[in-house]
Amino acid sequence: MIAKIFTAPYYAVIFTTILTDNIEGYQEMAEKMDNLAKEQEGYLGIESARSEIGITVSYWKSLEAISKWKNNVEHTYAREMGRQKWYQQYQLRICKVEREYGFEK
Amino acid sequence: MIAKIFTAPYYAVIFTTILTDNIEGYQEMAEKMDNLAKEQEGYLGIESARSEIGITVSYWKSLEAISKWKNNVEHTYAREMGRQKWYQQYQLRICKVEREYGFEK
Repeated sequence: MIAKIFTAPYYAVIFTTILTDNIEGYQEMAEKMDNLAKEQEGYLGIESARSEIGITVSYWKSLEAISKWKNNVEHTYAREMGRQKWYQQYQLRICKVEREYGFEK
Repeated sequence: MIAKIFTAPYYAVIFTTILTDNIEGYQEMAEKMDNLAKEQEGYLGIESARSEIGITVSYWKSLEAISKWKNNVEHTYAREMGRQKWYQQYQLRICKVEREYGFEK
Protein backbone atom coordinates (compact mmCIF):
# COMPACT_ATOMS: atom_id res chain seq x y z
CA MET A 1 0.00 0.00 0.00
CA ILE A 2 1.21 3.51 -0.78
CA ALA A 3 1.66 5.58 2.36
CA LYS A 4 -0.83 8.42 2.79
CA ILE A 5 -0.08 12.06 2.12
CA PHE A 6 1.43 13.66 5.21
CA THR A 7 2.08 17.28 6.01
CA ALA A 8 5.63 18.22 5.00
CA PRO A 9 8.18 18.53 6.45
CA TYR A 10 8.47 15.02 7.81
CA TYR A 11 11.13 12.34 7.56
CA ALA A 12 11.69 9.21 5.47
CA VAL A 13 14.05 6.32 6.19
CA ILE A 14 14.99 4.58 2.92
CA PHE A 15 16.24 1.08 3.77
CA THR A 16 17.62 -0.81 0.76
CA THR A 17 18.67 -4.45 1.22
CA ILE A 18 20.20 -7.45 -0.52
CA LEU A 19 19.52 -10.73 1.29
CA THR A 20 21.85 -13.71 1.73
CA ASP A 21 20.77 -17.23 0.71
CA ASN A 22 19.87 -17.96 4.35
CA ILE A 23 16.50 -16.27 4.83
CA GLU A 24 15.11 -18.67 7.44
CA GLY A 25 13.09 -16.59 9.90
CA TYR A 26 13.51 -13.39 7.88
CA GLN A 27 9.89 -12.92 6.77
CA GLU A 28 8.50 -13.42 10.29
CA MET A 29 11.00 -10.95 11.74
CA ALA A 30 10.30 -8.39 8.99
CA GLU A 31 6.56 -8.55 9.71
CA LYS A 32 7.16 -8.34 13.46
CA MET A 33 9.31 -5.22 12.98
CA ASP A 34 6.73 -3.62 10.65
CA ASN A 35 4.08 -4.13 13.32
CA LEU A 36 6.33 -2.91 16.11
CA ALA A 37 7.27 0.22 14.11
CA LYS A 38 3.57 1.05 13.77
CA GLU A 39 3.25 1.23 17.56
CA GLN A 40 6.07 3.76 17.95
CA GLU A 41 5.48 7.42 18.74
CA GLY A 42 5.98 9.58 15.66
CA TYR A 43 5.40 6.74 13.17
CA LEU A 44 3.50 7.88 10.05
CA GLY A 45 3.56 5.03 7.53
CA ILE A 46 5.54 2.41 5.62
CA GLU A 47 5.98 1.27 2.00
CA SER A 48 7.75 -1.91 0.96
CA ALA A 49 8.67 -3.80 -2.22
CA ARG A 50 11.13 -6.54 -3.08
CA SER A 51 12.41 -7.96 -6.37
CA GLU A 52 16.18 -8.09 -7.07
CA ILE A 53 16.68 -5.78 -4.08
CA GLY A 54 14.30 -4.84 -1.26
CA ILE A 55 13.28 -1.26 -0.58
CA THR A 56 11.39 -0.31 2.58
CA VAL A 57 10.57 3.34 3.20
CA SER A 58 9.23 4.28 6.62
CA TYR A 59 7.90 7.77 7.40
CA TRP A 60 8.30 9.59 10.72
CA LYS A 61 7.29 12.87 12.32
CA SER A 62 10.78 13.77 13.54
CA LEU A 63 14.45 12.75 13.71
CA GLU A 64 13.89 12.09 17.41
CA ALA A 65 11.23 9.46 16.60
CA ILE A 66 13.66 7.78 14.15
CA SER A 67 16.41 7.79 16.75
CA LYS A 68 14.13 6.22 19.38
CA TRP A 69 13.06 3.51 16.93
CA LYS A 70 16.71 2.85 16.08
CA ASN A 71 17.46 2.31 19.76
CA ASN A 72 14.36 0.20 20.52
CA VAL A 73 15.60 -3.02 22.20
CA GLU A 74 13.68 -5.48 20.00
CA HIS A 75 14.64 -3.55 16.87
CA THR A 76 18.30 -3.57 17.92
CA TYR A 77 18.14 -7.35 18.39
CA ALA A 78 16.48 -7.81 14.96
CA ARG A 79 19.14 -5.63 13.30
CA GLU A 80 21.91 -7.70 14.86
CA MET A 81 20.23 -10.95 13.67
CA GLY A 82 19.92 -9.36 10.22
CA ARG A 83 23.61 -8.53 10.05
CA GLN A 84 24.58 -12.03 11.17
CA LYS A 85 22.17 -14.02 8.97
CA TRP A 86 19.92 -12.28 6.49
CA TYR A 87 21.63 -9.24 5.01
CA GLN A 88 24.36 -9.49 2.41
CA GLN A 89 24.31 -5.72 2.10
CA TYR A 90 22.16 -2.79 3.15
CA GLN A 91 22.07 0.97 2.93
CA LEU A 92 19.98 3.19 5.18
CA ARG A 93 19.31 6.81 4.31
CA ILE A 94 17.60 9.32 6.59
CA CYS A 95 15.86 12.05 4.62
CA LYS A 96 13.72 15.11 5.16
CA VAL A 97 10.68 15.08 2.86
CA GLU A 98 10.33 18.56 1.44
CA ARG A 99 7.62 18.28 -1.23
CA GLU A 100 5.21 15.70 -2.53
CA TYR A 101 2.91 15.15 -5.47
CA GLY A 102 0.23 12.53 -5.91
CA PHE A 103 -1.94 11.05 -8.63
CA GLU A 104 -4.91 8.73 -8.34
CA LYS A 105 -7.37 7.49 -10.99
CA MET B 1 21.59 -2.87 -7.30
CA ILE B 2 21.90 -0.70 -4.21
CA ALA B 3 22.97 2.83 -5.06
CA LYS B 4 26.48 3.77 -3.98
CA ILE B 5 27.28 5.94 -0.98
CA PHE B 6 27.19 9.59 -1.94
CA THR B 7 28.34 12.64 -0.04
CA ALA B 8 25.43 14.12 1.95
CA PRO B 9 23.58 16.35 1.55
CA TYR B 10 22.04 15.21 -1.71
CA TYR B 11 18.47 14.56 -2.82
CA ALA B 12 16.23 11.51 -3.22
CA VAL B 13 13.02 11.22 -5.22
CA ILE B 14 10.84 8.42 -3.80
CA PHE B 15 8.36 7.37 -6.49
CA THR B 16 5.79 4.83 -5.27
CA THR B 17 3.36 3.35 -7.80
CA ILE B 18 0.39 1.03 -8.23
CA LEU B 19 -0.13 -0.10 -11.82
CA THR B 20 -3.39 -0.64 -13.69
CA ASP B 21 -4.17 -3.95 -15.43
CA ASN B 22 -3.06 -2.41 -18.73
CA ILE B 23 0.74 -2.53 -18.57
CA GLU B 24 1.37 -2.90 -22.31
CA GLY B 25 4.50 -0.90 -23.11
CA TYR B 26 5.18 -0.05 -19.46
CA GLN B 27 8.38 -2.06 -18.99
CA GLU B 28 10.00 -0.69 -22.14
CA MET B 29 9.16 2.88 -21.14
CA ALA B 30 10.40 2.35 -17.56
CA GLU B 31 13.74 1.09 -18.86
CA LYS B 32 13.97 3.92 -21.38
CA MET B 33 13.34 6.48 -18.61
CA ASP B 34 15.92 4.82 -16.30
CA ASN B 35 18.51 5.08 -19.07
CA LEU B 36 17.55 8.65 -19.91
CA ALA B 37 17.73 9.67 -16.22
CA LYS B 38 21.29 8.35 -16.07
CA GLU B 39 22.32 10.80 -18.82
CA GLN B 40 21.02 13.85 -16.96
CA GLU B 41 23.28 16.36 -15.24
CA GLY B 42 23.24 15.89 -11.49
CA TYR B 43 22.06 12.28 -11.61
CA LEU B 44 23.69 10.10 -8.92
CA GLY B 45 21.95 6.72 -8.90
CA ILE B 46 18.72 4.72 -8.88
CA GLU B 47 17.18 1.84 -6.89
CA SER B 48 14.05 -0.03 -7.90
CA ALA B 49 11.85 -2.87 -6.63
CA ARG B 50 8.33 -4.07 -7.36
CA SER B 51 6.00 -6.51 -5.64
CA GLU B 52 2.50 -5.41 -4.54
CA ILE B 53 3.60 -1.82 -5.14
CA GLY B 54 6.60 -0.45 -7.01
CA ILE B 55 9.19 1.78 -5.36
CA THR B 56 11.84 3.61 -7.39
CA VAL B 57 14.25 5.91 -5.60
CA SER B 58 16.46 8.14 -7.73
CA TYR B 59 19.27 10.22 -6.26
CA TRP B 60 20.31 13.69 -7.43
CA LYS B 61 22.92 16.32 -6.63
CA SER B 62 20.46 19.22 -6.34
CA LEU B 63 16.81 20.30 -6.47
CA GLU B 64 17.67 22.07 -9.72
CA ALA B 65 18.72 18.75 -11.31
CA ILE B 66 15.41 17.17 -10.17
CA SER B 67 13.44 20.09 -11.60
CA LYS B 68 15.24 19.85 -14.96
CA TRP B 69 14.57 16.10 -15.12
CA LYS B 70 10.90 16.71 -14.29
CA ASN B 71 10.66 19.12 -17.23
CA ASN B 72 12.60 16.98 -19.71
CA VAL B 73 10.41 16.63 -22.82
CA GLU B 74 10.63 12.83 -23.16
CA HIS B 75 10.07 12.40 -19.43
CA THR B 76 7.02 14.66 -19.56
CA TYR B 77 5.59 12.56 -22.40
CA ALA B 78 6.25 9.32 -20.49
CA ARG B 79 4.56 10.75 -17.37
CA GLU B 80 1.49 11.70 -19.40
CA MET B 81 1.35 8.18 -20.93
CA GLY B 82 1.70 6.76 -17.41
CA ARG B 83 -1.22 8.78 -16.09
CA GLN B 84 -3.39 7.79 -19.03
CA LYS B 85 -2.55 4.07 -19.15
CA TRP B 86 -0.25 2.52 -16.60
CA TYR B 87 -0.68 4.17 -13.20
CA GLN B 88 -3.64 3.51 -10.98
CA GLN B 89 -2.02 5.62 -8.28
CA TYR B 90 1.35 7.16 -7.52
CA GLN B 91 3.03 9.30 -4.91
CA LEU B 92 6.23 11.22 -5.49
CA ARG B 93 8.26 12.60 -2.58
CA ILE B 94 11.27 14.88 -2.92
CA CYS B 95 13.65 14.52 0.01
CA LYS B 96 16.96 15.83 1.24
CA VAL B 97 19.22 12.98 2.35
CA GLU B 98 20.79 14.03 5.62
CA ARG B 99 22.60 10.94 6.91
CA GLU B 100 23.37 7.44 5.76
CA TYR B 101 24.63 4.16 7.16
CA GLY B 102 25.77 1.08 5.28
CA PHE B 103 26.56 -2.56 5.92
CA GLU B 104 28.24 -5.08 3.66
CA LYS B 105 29.39 -8.66 4.39
